[in-house]
Amino acid sequence: MLALMQQRPLALPHVFHRAEQYFGHKTLVTAEAAGESTMSIADWAQRVRRLASVLDTLDVSADGRVGTFCWNTARHLELYMAAPCTGRVLHTLNIRLFPEQLTYIVNHAADEVVFVDRSLLPVLWPLVDKLETVRHFVVIDDGADAEVPDDPRVHDYEELLAAATPFTGTFTIEDENTAAAMCYTSGTTGNPKGVVYSHRSAVLHSLISLVADGIALSERDVVLPVVPMFHANAWGLPYGCLLAGSDMVFPGPNMTPQAIAALLEKHRVTVTGGVPTIWMGMLPLLPDLDLSALRLILCGGSAVPKALSEDYRKAIGVPMLHAWGMTETSPIATISGLRSHHAGASEADLADARSRQGYATPLVDLRLVDPSTGEIQPWDDVASGEIQAAGPWIAAEYFRGEGEGAQFTEDGWLRTGDVATVDRYGSVRLVDRTKDLIKSGGEWIGSVELENEIMAHPKVAEAAVIAIPHPKWVERPMACVVVKAGETLTAEEVIAHLEPRVAKWWLPDAVEFIDEVPKTSVGKFSKKTLREKFGGYQVQNP
Amino acid sequence: MLALMQQRPLALPHVFHRAEQYFGHKTLVTAEAAGESTMSIADWAQRVRRLASVLDTLDVSADGRVGTFCWNTARHLELYMAAPCTGRVLHTLNIRLFPEQLTYIVNHAADEVVFVDRSLLPVLWPLVDKLETVRHFVVIDDGADAEVPDDPRVHDYEELLAAATPFTGTFTIEDENTAAAMCYTSGTTGNPKGVVYSHRSAVLHSLISLVADGIALSERDVVLPVVPMFHANAWGLPYGCLLAGSDMVFPGPNMTPQAIAALLEKHRVTVTGGVPTIWMGMLPLLPDLDLSALRLILCGGSAVPKALSEDYRKAIGVPMLHAWGMTETSPIATISGLRSHHAGASEADLADARSRQGYATPLVDLRLVDPSTGEIQPWDDVASGEIQAAGPWIAAEYFRGEGEGAQFTEDGWLRTGDVATVDRYGSVRLVDRTKDLIKSGGEWIGSVELENEIMAHPKVAEAAVIAIPHPKWVERPMACVVVKAGETLTAEEVIAHLEPRVAKWWLPDAVEFIDEVPKTSVGKFSKKTLREKFGGYQVQNP
Repeated sequence: MLALMQQRPLALPHVFHRAEQYFGHKTLVTAEAAGESTMSIADWAQRVRRLASVLDTLDVSADGRVGTFCWNTARHLELYMAAPCTGRVLHTLNIRLFPEQLTYIVNHAADEVVFVDRSLLPVLWPLVDKLETVRHFVVIDDGADAEVPDDPRVHDYEELLAAATPFTGTFTIEDENTAAAMCYTSGTTGNPKGVVYSHRSAVLHSLISLVADGIALSERDVVLPVVPMFHANAWGLPYGCLLAGSDMVFPGPNMTPQAIAALLEKHRVTVTGGVPTIWMGMLPLLPDLDLSALRLILCGGSAVPKALSEDYRKAIGVPMLHAWGMTETSPIATISGLRSHHAGASEADLADARSRQGYATPLVDLRLVDPSTGEIQPWDDVASGEIQAAGPWIAAEYFRGEGEGAQFTEDGWLRTGDVATVDRYGSVRLVDRTKDLIKSGGEWIGSVELENEIMAHPKVAEAAVIAIPHPKWVERPMACVVVKAGETLTAEEVIAHLEPRVAKWWLPDAVEFIDEVPKTSVGKFSKKTLREKFGGYQVQNP
Repeated sequence: MLALMQQRPLALPHVFHRAEQYFGHKTLVTAEAAGESTMSIADWAQRVRRLASVLDTLDVSADGRVGTFCWNTARHLELYMAAPCTGRVLHTLNIRLFPEQLTYIVNHAADEVVFVDRSLLPVLWPLVDKLETVRHFVVIDDGADAEVPDDPRVHDYEELLAAATPFTGTFTIEDENTAAAMCYTSGTTGNPKGVVYSHRSAVLHSLISLVADGIALSERDVVLPVVPMFHANAWGLPYGCLLAGSDMVFPGPNMTPQAIAALLEKHRVTVTGGVPTIWMGMLPLLPDLDLSALRLILCGGSAVPKALSEDYRKAIGVPMLHAWGMTETSPIATISGLRSHHAGASEADLADARSRQGYATPLVDLRLVDPSTGEIQPWDDVASGEIQAAGPWIAAEYFRGEGEGAQFTEDGWLRTGDVATVDRYGSVRLVDRTKDLIKSGGEWIGSVELENEIMAHPKVAEAAVIAIPHPKWVERPMACVVVKAGETLTAEEVIAHLEPRVAKWWLPDAVEFIDEVPKTSVGKFSKKTLREKFGGYQVQNP
């Protein structure tokens, strides 16, 4: 029998109106070229109401895609809300993509308008004639001196807002499965694929960022998302903060460790999040910083080196909190943290626990599947397999049917492409990407595990491990190591460091020193680039 | 356009399987007549799987109502999960109802089976011939010596479980709007009315009990629900704890302050919740207790006297956390707590803030409506009105269409019957029930506000304020006061205490001393009983 509860959709208008009604006095700070700008949520909400009218004035279709090509700013957050609350689809564009990928994505999504930060115009405007569906470019003047083209398609954001009549009613989305936002994967093979988020998935994912055993966003928090709003919803922090009523600080275009560090200190930020690279860059600055307000550093995008997390814990008392997911998972699927069974554990064991990807959040289901046999693997922390994921904020398919079959199982689960073990308490530990696994003599070697051990060496800044061909074992591991500035290190020292830490047959057959690990557009290690670089490598003593 | 997220229902099987998979090592303790029993979640889950088969064996319909007449126990929690996970509807019966009400409710819901604690058999069994739809009575032996009738309809819970083949698959509920549970209101007028909860509402409400600005249930918590599982889902704590992975302690039949206090201390309980009466009773015991593990006392059901909360804060450092709601709201609609704007406030102001009913939780919408004119009232903490509520866990109607219209607005909001003011930050402060408001000379006097001020007197244990007829002003307030044991108090002292605290025209025209405030079956003040008692009261000097 059916229940008799109210049929209220889980939709972003609730988040908007709640923020406006309860948190109007809270603030949004944005760092810009000309200095900081501060806006109250009340003023922000009025601007969202104006922006809703602007989208009508620009004649954006009822479910038209609204592209954004922006840094992390309060104005980007206006777009995050105005587009979905009016039934349109927010389409965040990754500013670091190659021009061909960007063009492909805009055309594939059929963006009707693109909102672009003035400082990013020089990246976008050269592509203008290839963007087939875009009728308007709205320039958000962030104080950069980039020339604004004299073109009828180009508008000024503030002029449009000033001329608009604010929407005065309550935003309404009838069907919670309506598309709210979309984002393309940064897949290194094939064309980028579009993930389309629903109002329901956005609201549920936001709720999860409030739960105690997780990010635990609170009204008392001040949150600085380093993770870009142009990719994977900035890990859900923008909507989560609006739901919780947290203050927010947006770093704008200056993403240097120095600039981020200054903002963290000045605004007494309590929660921040970003990929490991930014935290590596900030490490040398810690002794001179007062980060006593900071309670949580969320870290993800790639595996967090345990040594980095420990360096932070020792320097400021706050280790990294590891989260795992991907564009297809909205993105948070698991989150680390300590549980009751860790009570009394040694610091070393606690560091191990924190370096794991952690536990599926409520509403997410995970299973471990052997990529060869398709058999479900036990959670004994020994057996490894691909993680498959299911849940209300996990993709069921890609936009316009791209890549069907390959990434989704017949029973509707997402193949994440990540290989892991899971312990008896359900904590995930990534060992590799399916495509990065090294198969040596019929057995797998986890490149991520090897990297973590190498990065625990005090003289190592970064390390990536790839497979190189081997006449007898088919594949063997090669370590590509970045030495910290001012330090020296030999291949022998790397191997000696690994010997007590991994099985003998896991020891790399080669150690190469490189200047930096190449990164993808979202800051992940690009092993594809390394594999190309070392494509013809021959093992010395096979 | 529709999004492309997985269509995974929000349903209790997720909560069950998550608890089984992640939290099998966590424990459930139940206090029974013969001592404590401890069960792991893993064992509990196996028993739920057996119980699922038992419901089939008993031939309970696919969506049949499964009545429970039980104390707070781990076995009651088995029923909380097995009934809804198999598509049946858990129907918790209030053990404190009058026999006629109980009979009415069982027949109205058409319960097919009732699970009853042996200690409660003497209450239920005398009604057996009037319970028209019940085919089975399953006795849960809690060690009481009540005689078990020799009747073919009577079964033993443990015998049925032992004989059952555990269900081995994954529980599945296709439609998240399927009924999961029901509970009847304890309305003091008319017949009790059935509220039917969905899987969706139960899961969302459980999630809300995990958010940081609220109860913030965590895997590290040990939770003792004093609030009965036989009414309003024990405020959502049982499902919330299973979702979070908290340990639980169930008090069983012995609900004395002494017994509860001993359990809180022994099991280092971190979170507990119950109506004010239980905390009043425990107050004298605090000096001899070690409650250092306790972090949160959830309090609701009726307005929490500020003085009581302050007594706890001073004695053990933990004030009450006030929550507000009702059967129709699953039940939590608002929750109190301190926000960033309280930083630096005085202890007196903090106590005021905590004594408010607090902020709507995420996903709940509230509005304040003048009961006479129907006009929306501003949130200025001055204007008062009835609170109306909307949200995915708020009732849309009652079972079998009882009481339509009167309790729901045309646009689908619940009329809560509670009158409140709301401050600019959205914090609710109850002033009265619509039906308890005192209309004196055309103006309203809030009886709850008056009661709170009277209960702040150090010699007052409890106080209830009702309207008495007046020849000139139509109605005037009368205070019914319970003096603390061993103390003496006069009407003049009560009035003198109130004079600096309330407007002059709010001062009661009469003060009567009574032995205790009569309570409803769920522990709320029964002002109906007081009004009957003082029905012919004449004001002395009108």
